[in-house]
Amino acid sequence: MSPKKLARGVALVGAGMSKFGSFKGKSSRDLFVEAYVEMLESVEKGIDPTMIEALYVGNYSSDLFEGQGHIAPIMASWTGLSPLPAVRVEDACASAGVALREGILAVASGMYDVVLVGGVEKMTDLATEKVTDTLATAADVQYELPAGFTFPGFYAAMATAYMNDFGATPETFMKVGIKNHFNGSMNEKAQFGAKISTLMEARRASAAKKGLPVPEWDDELEFLHDDRANPPIAWPMRLYDCSPISDGAAVVLLVSEDIAKKFSDTPIYVAGMGQASDGALHDRDTLTSIPAAKLAGEQAYKMAGITPAEIDFAEVHDCFTIAEIIATEDLGFFEQGKGWQAAEAGDTSRDGKKPINLSGGLKSKGHPVGASGVGQVVEVWKQLLGKAGDRQLQRKLKYGLTHNVGGTGQTCVVHIFERRG
Amino acid sequence: MSPKKLARGVALVGAGMSKFGSFKGKSSRDLFVEAYVEMLESVEKGIDPTMIEALYVGNYSSDLFEGQGHIAPIMASWTGLSPLPAVRVEDACASAGVALREGILAVASGMYDVVLVGGVEKMTDLATEKVTDTLATAADVQYELPAGFTFPGFYAAMATAYMNDFGATPETFMKVGIKNHFNGSMNEKAQFGAKISTLMEARRASAAKKGLPVPEWDDELEFLHDDRANPPIAWPMRLYDCSPISDGAAVVLLVSEDIAKKFSDTPIYVAGMGQASDGALHDRDTLTSIPAAKLAGEQAYKMAGITPAEIDFAEVHDCFTIAEIIATEDLGFFEQGKGWQAAEAGDTSRDGKKPINLSGGLKSKGHPVGASGVGQVVEVWKQLLGKAGDRQLQRKLKYGLTHNVGGTGQTCVVHIFERRG
Repeated sequence: MSPKKLARGVALVGAGMSKFGSFKGKSSRDLFVEAYVEMLESVEKGIDPTMIEALYVGNYSSDLFEGQGHIAPIMASWTGLSPLPAVRVEDACASAGVALREGILAVASGMYDVVLVGGVEKMTDLATEKVTDTLATAADVQYELPAGFTFPGFYAAMATAYMNDFGATPETFMKVGIKNHFNGSMNEKAQFGAKISTLMEARRASAAKKGLPVPEWDDELEFLHDDRANPPIAWPMRLYDCSPISDGAAVVLLVSEDIAKKFSDTPIYVAGMGQASDGALHDRDTLTSIPAAKLAGEQAYKMAGITPAEIDFAEVHDCFTIAEIIATEDLGFFEQGKGWQAAEAGDTSRDGKKPINLSGGLKSKGHPVGASGVGQVVEVWKQLLGKAGDRQLQRKLKYGLTHNVGGTGQTCVVHIFERRG
Repeated sequence: MSPKKLARGVALVGAGMSKFGSFKGKSSRDLFVEAYVEMLESVEKGIDPTMIEALYVGNYSSDLFEGQGHIAPIMASWTGLSPLPAVRVEDACASAGVALREGILAVASGMYDVVLVGGVEKMTDLATEKVTDTLATAADVQYELPAGFTFPGFYAAMATAYMNDFGATPETFMKVGIKNHFNGSMNEKAQFGAKISTLMEARRASAAKKGLPVPEWDDELEFLHDDRANPPIAWPMRLYDCSPISDGAAVVLLVSEDIAKKFSDTPIYVAGMGQASDGALHDRDTLTSIPAAKLAGEQAYKMAGITPAEIDFAEVHDCFTIAEIIATEDLGFFEQGKGWQAAEAGDTSRDGKKPINLSGGLKSKGHPVGASGVGQVVEVWKQLLGKAGDRQLQRKLKYGLTHNVGGTGQTCVVHIFERRG
């Protein structure tokens, strides 16, 4: 399983995304077109759409969310790109990250020079109470669901095991949420682009306006400990430990390395990538690590020829706050069992030594499941180019990493992007 | 959109499939493992499964058929192949053909030397009356379904347009069904592996046994004209014009050309391939041709450097009998509007000049939708190697073609396989 060398290099030269949120009256098609148009405008030296040769679409389940299967050619048609080959890729919440990988392989194969990769999910058409059940079909339906598990439960099990083994507390997880909401407050595309303190004050103002008793919270942590403001979903995962139900789309444009400078003086190169699969959670030796993430990370570092220490920042799959902590360990940023201490110490904050989820992450930016993997790449592309606006990291950046997980780690896909010069 | 050259060649060195049919108590997992085990045994010089580096799984909608999403890592786990990267590819009934293409691109990219590609669908768990609605989600749910269309209706519209424009009759379509059932009667894996005449006699025997009047039919055509024996589904498409609801799986093993002879003295090479997409049927200029199929075929011939005349035999996507006739024109085997005459003249039969669907096709072999594209390849592989048993074509064979369609042609993917020497 040692990763080999690609027959030729691949670079990113454009990226775009829709706003993430809850958009009644918009379908996957509308969101995808929104992201596509922003991508077209993002290409520094311009792109003639007729140069695009193939389309990959990550999507978890338009089938279940919108009653629409076979969406890849629909996205091709609505972007005006028919009759190019259009392929849907599905690996649960890692669908878009895996779609990106397929796009990279397609360019590397020599078959295409210019490939569009996107991800899209429209989740809010389904009744809210059905969404968790729908997402649960990404677990093992034969063995895990009959035991009563859905994803908040899986990650709660991982969180309690992690607390037991390493000493983290529920406050550790809250601090991850506070950080990601702080980051997301600078992201105009985020679904919940507000600091926890802002949400707290809004709640107080709302109570006052209604003439209800105004809750007194000393700080964000006290607010997050309030069972009414932040109810447990599956203890120790509370509402603000969980990513939301979201609609959204994101796309990127891939080109072969040899033509990349025709599109941009600063292409962002794919330096490394890795992907691995695993059996269901009930069948693993550990609850406090995701083996497929470790493997995918190792493959990506080996291919890029770098170590975790050389990664300047990362977008990781924080579907739940515990997942971010485990991710930072699986990716080798911190030792196993020490990620929670790094999070508490602020090492993963904007001004820390290893900033994680500058976009706000899935927690604050939103998690349209089949789009998230490419959404992460949009953030890395912007940060590496200095185009991230208010949330731009004010450091010299060379390597950014994305980590995208399907299920509880039945799929994990990691990419490392590089800015040269 | 001119196809380029792959960075390196790819060959097939193994193939296997489950029986196609209706298997209560078997899940996708069981069927996939069945196909996988047969594939392992088919590799002439043997294969150590740990050499397999990646898995592609074509599947239309385990989500809707079995309530199970994220099936690629499950198939990896059940075949013992975790933690290799596992990717599900979906393009409706072309899912497996497109998965094959992704596997080919992955090998060509240099990332992998040995890739497993499969397709699987388990359709019979769903109540029969819901299957047609479920399949209809592969059309345009916003525009076509509200007009009352499901797939028998789409293909009936194509059939009536074809009859009007070119002079075919409902008997033309019946003759395609008779041929495919005749071919399928020699295929032990076929769901309906019996000639129409055999089915006709069985029906007479059943009536006699029950003491009911025994129908008198002079021949197969008279049987097929009987509204009770062969009811119209969407005129002119009757029951025996429609492929069945099926469970099944098929897999093939791909390797890079440079190592192919380690696995077989007679690898079957991927000579050409093509894929195209299209908007929905209601938005096209023609009902009597599938533009994406024409394009995919042209790309494949160009890449292989051959003409349609050089194809010795083909497995085409006969989800309905009309679809086979149109396919033989789109692929350039016959002129547009002349395919029905060729079918009537026997040109597409086993002993005709262009044998089509030697396996029995989707019509007789069965159509587990996400598996069919790879099922076609299994047949081509066997025929090219002289391993097709009773139904082996007794000619020297060099080129075999597969033609796999999603929806009414929103996706089409074509592959050309070559036996050298």
